[in-house]
Amino acid sequence: MARECSGAGEAMTRVFALLGKRWTGIVLAVLMQGEARFAELRRSVPGISERMLSDRLSELAAAGLVVREVVPGPPLGVNYRLTTAGTALGPAMGALGAWAEEHLADGVPPAATECPEANRPS
Amino acid sequence: MARECSGAGEAMTRVFALLGKRWTGIVLAVLMQGEARFAELRRSVPGISERMLSDRLSELAAAGLVVREVVPGPPLGVNYRLTTAGTALGPAMGALGAWAEEHLADGVPPAATECPEANRPS
Repeated sequence: MARECSGAGEAMTRVFALLGKRWTGIVLAVLMQGEARFAELRRSVPGISERMLSDRLSELAAAGLVVREVVPGPPLGVNYRLTTAGTALGPAMGALGAWAEEHLADGVPPAATECPEANRPS
Repeated sequence: MARECSGAGEAMTRVFALLGKRWTGIVLAVLMQGEARFAELRRSVPGISERMLSDRLSELAAAGLVVREVVPGPPLGVNYRLTTAGTALGPAMGALGAWAEEHLADGVPPAATECPEANRPS
């Protein structure tokens, strides 16, 4: 039985099984600002592919953090919003952001940069 | 200039450029418990390869969160510990863990599971 599957503790292991995947945290942070259509989400996460966004949203839905709702058309749309559990992540996300403001330099090393697309002219 | 390179905001983008990589959050969570040798870290993060751990530690050092110190031998060792900036991430990590305890089910979907090794007999 894997009650504690790493020295980090079971809860941290569960959190980072989710947040330790590329884009997941960013998608959650965007949804914290309010529900959004798939296309809006994609625009808000520069560099993410349609497939990636779709996969991340499915994982978040499976974990109970995001709900997918079909919006009757026309035009037919799919809406994504946080569940209560997803919204409850807000304060922790806020704490991460505040920490970054204070402690994480603007010039992150290239290897750690997540948003190369943002530097391209649109 | 990419002042805000995603709809998530610049700080969140920076945080998840770091934490949105597999293992990084777990390595940080382990180091929150105290400094550790490379081999100890590897034992505390089941499933991580030597190369991956080395890469993640280098990224964390480049971001100013971890310090690497050679410990004169014998046996010669390399020690890793959090910097002030790294330690300052503690409360946010604690908030993530508390959220997981309350809102993230034990049975994370297989796709999101990060620690398959822990289920193997050792």
